[in-house]
Amino acid sequence: MAQIRHALNTTRADDFAAWYQDVISSAEMAEESGVRGCMVIRPWGYGIWERMQRLLDDRIKATGHSNAYFPIFIPLSNFEREAEHVEGFAKEMAVVTHHRLIAGKDGGLVPDPEAKLEEPLVVRPTSETIIGDAMARWVQSWRDLPLKLNQWANVVRWEMRTRMFLRTSEFLWQEGHTAHADEAEAKDHTLTMLEVYRAFADEDLALAVIPGEKPENERFPGAVETWSIEAMMQDGKALQAGTSHYLGTNFAEASGIKYQNKDGGESLCHTTSWGVSTRMVGGVIMTHGDDDGLRLPPKIAPQQVVILPMLRDKPDDEALIDYCEALRATLASQHVLGEPLRVLLDTRPGKAAAKRWDYVRKGAPIIIEVGGRDMENGVVSLLRRDRLWNEENGKPAFQTPTREIAGQTVPDILADMQSSLLTEAQERREANITRGVTDFAEVEKFFSAARYPGWVEVQWSKPTGAELEEVVERLKALKLTMRNVPIGAAPVDGECIFTGKPATERVLLAKAY
Amino acid sequence: MAQIRHALNTTRADDFAAWYQDVISSAEMAEESGVRGCMVIRPWGYGIWERMQRLLDDRIKATGHSNAYFPIFIPLSNFEREAEHVEGFAKEMAVVTHHRLIAGKDGGLVPDPEAKLEEPLVVRPTSETIIGDAMARWVQSWRDLPLKLNQWANVVRWEMRTRMFLRTSEFLWQEGHTAHADEAEAKDHTLTMLEVYRAFADEDLALAVIPGEKPENERFPGAVETWSIEAMMQDGKALQAGTSHYLGTNFAEASGIKYQNKDGGESLCHTTSWGVSTRMVGGVIMTHGDDDGLRLPPKIAPQQVVILPMLRDKPDDEALIDYCEALRATLASQHVLGEPLRVLLDTRPGKAAAKRWDYVRKGAPIIIEVGGRDMENGVVSLLRRDRLWNEENGKPAFQTPTREIAGQTVPDILADMQSSLLTEAQERREANITRGVTDFAEVEKFFSAARYPGWVEVQWSKPTGAELEEVVERLKALKLTMRNVPIGAAPVDGECIFTGKPATERVLLAKAY
Repeated sequence: MAQIRHALNTTRADDFAAWYQDVISSAEMAEESGVRGCMVIRPWGYGIWERMQRLLDDRIKATGHSNAYFPIFIPLSNFEREAEHVEGFAKEMAVVTHHRLIAGKDGGLVPDPEAKLEEPLVVRPTSETIIGDAMARWVQSWRDLPLKLNQWANVVRWEMRTRMFLRTSEFLWQEGHTAHADEAEAKDHTLTMLEVYRAFADEDLALAVIPGEKPENERFPGAVETWSIEAMMQDGKALQAGTSHYLGTNFAEASGIKYQNKDGGESLCHTTSWGVSTRMVGGVIMTHGDDDGLRLPPKIAPQQVVILPMLRDKPDDEALIDYCEALRATLASQHVLGEPLRVLLDTRPGKAAAKRWDYVRKGAPIIIEVGGRDMENGVVSLLRRDRLWNEENGKPAFQTPTREIAGQTVPDILADMQSSLLTEAQERREANITRGVTDFAEVEKFFSAARYPGWVEVQWSKPTGAELEEVVERLKALKLTMRNVPIGAAPVDGECIFTGKPATERVLLAKAY
Repeated sequence: MAQIRHALNTTRADDFAAWYQDVISSAEMAEESGVRGCMVIRPWGYGIWERMQRLLDDRIKATGHSNAYFPIFIPLSNFEREAEHVEGFAKEMAVVTHHRLIAGKDGGLVPDPEAKLEEPLVVRPTSETIIGDAMARWVQSWRDLPLKLNQWANVVRWEMRTRMFLRTSEFLWQEGHTAHADEAEAKDHTLTMLEVYRAFADEDLALAVIPGEKPENERFPGAVETWSIEAMMQDGKALQAGTSHYLGTNFAEASGIKYQNKDGGESLCHTTSWGVSTRMVGGVIMTHGDDDGLRLPPKIAPQQVVILPMLRDKPDDEALIDYCEALRATLASQHVLGEPLRVLLDTRPGKAAAKRWDYVRKGAPIIIEVGGRDMENGVVSLLRRDRLWNEENGKPAFQTPTREIAGQTVPDILADMQSSLLTEAQERREANITRGVTDFAEVEKFFSAARYPGWVEVQWSKPTGAELEEVVERLKALKLTMRNVPIGAAPVDGECIFTGKPATERVLLAKAY
């Protein structure tokens, strides 16, 4: 086995956090903006988000939701109506207090004291309360239900310690909000959307997530039930990749979302909300990235195939570009994974080999290089991003199909890559979940010994109140949290690892982002 | 000719402003949010905006731009670097001063004095300065140019008098920002994007706009040249529907956007910016709406065809739904105007006739009703939104093709509607532009006499400084503004209507939104 010289300066094994930043900057996905806690999402990173948006939006619409748009500013008084909700968000809200600037004493600009708002406005951290107001206006009768809305928007939660994509003061997301006639339908819808997220995460992003219910202490502020999908990162930590909340009648009471029921009486609606954000991009990086940079499931790759002619600033460049253009046109006319294939012919100035490594770091699924000799032989040099290296000679594992065969087989390669990235993530996840731990001392040992320990599944009695707080504190001492109670886990059999009482369900423990 | 009973309570002739609000509320497009100056865009209104986004985004990408995302917050100091720019926006900026709320003395929430920002942040009114910062980091060499970016985002300009879609404190838009090596290329690109806007406005929205250059006094703060597309509303007023700015090196100097040129020296970039917003939705309403509500060019209709079975809560409903579903499936499998046909089969509770009028007011291009007798006869009842009435009997002008023929001809009807709405707008515009007015007294008479006078094209000498100010004041007294200097206007021939000097170009005068 030959030594491979990887494309990044940092490796996952050396320093996972530094590697993460390296992937983001060398793939030109995002960067610090200079504005506290806010990032700039660069075209390649935003292109991935656009692909996610398109795929998830289709799934959300297919389940009967319509998109709408609500104000970015929320009056303080709206928040005050739901006590737990405001308690949960008050510490991290950006507050608008003035609507004009004037020249200050030193010539710089200052907020105009004459233009102070009577009631400060909060930049939305989430929109339950403002959308609740609209629902109260729109829902009159049972005929108006269910009301199924979704919004794509920016939100702001002031964060002191930020990390690109994973935790930023401003982030992009979708937030779904629905109102239903009764508890059963609303709870059912909460799970329908959790399943939409699971399918999106697995089938589109190849994340191999575990759906389940959050324990009480991890609920969304104001929710009755919170469900999540949890993804395992390559360092063994968990990433909460999406949440779906059953809100009971809490927000309906706060905003007055009532309807005339079939008996002519008045009932409160039961509402749900659910969201997925740009954080998911961080999950894709930490699930699929390797020591050469990003790898992307083809469904979310801004470009699935990049063709690089090896131009030499000579007259025969033109013939080479024509040769590549024919392949580009063939590929662009094909469909893969249900959509037109996305292919880029990159003829910008610069050496093909340097560009190759740029696209490797960006995670373009297939890179095709074409030099003069390739053209003479009627072939192309094709590199699969998920099988980059020939381990025997330590060189990039180029295949050299004829141009015609490349034109035919590229869609199959992309489809194969989409499913093999999911299989890889599933296998890694299963290999790194330890089940059947019954003694808390073992948990302590497990998480203190291994560097990337993965997750542990334990049985518990679902304690509440002070008993639950004690559990949370014990886990906190190990920097652990309960991730969720997986749907479809094996039946319980034994005692609660925390309380010694008969166990009622299984719960996943992990370090988390 | 029979009396027609229109679907709205207000008519354009009675009160154009009230009619506009009536269209918006009865089509359920948008409403006041309760948050000062901010509107809620409801699903039907947002669906139109989503269609616009998709079509314009395709055009922007086809001209080589990539989408990216920049922070919503801009530090004050960024603005201070470009004097004209800050002067233009300081009076209408929402200012964030705190990042946390705490309980105040009366128990309500107040901004936490301990969490006051060192430097206040402005909610972006436009992003030249923050994107300029990024460009300065990304552009190093001539090889990095041109840099062509676009952003879809919300922006805030604090407005005292708001009108839905046309003027709101928060609005949605796209803002394109590009950096170029020299003046010629940047100016050329400014016009390329103006042409993209013109094509989008005419071919997709059927607005029949006039592209041209804004006079100096109407330029974007900090721009060297501002170009616009101007659309004529049915009340004869002008709506600026999109602008494209050549910014010279003003923002490049402010942000330090420099590059190493081919000679090895350092040069400043020349930048452009251009934007189109949700204001365009208002333009669609005031161009195409009629006394029955909204009419929509099929390309931007969220649903192009709505099928309404006349359900009677009886067992034979099922056969009727099957009959309609077959038509829906036939239509959904077809393409029209370059995209899959959008068709909705609406089986929600409620009377078909009441729903018909809801969709008329919403501007669904084709409404198909199907009753039991239609089914027996193998036909459907088809209503074209742009030819709603049989003027002879005052009734809706239903056609009754067989279901098979309807399945075949609907795409043709939609394509015809798309082009006939444009023709209608073009003809109205041309009929309402008065050319060849050479005496300012005539202009005065014209705009004071007619209720919906349209526009007047005059010749002028393009004065500057005090002379221009005087022109602006004279027009202001008549509530008029100069809209733009149309591209491709007839050659000048005579004197400036304002100064008496030899005219150099033609300029459009109008009342405007």
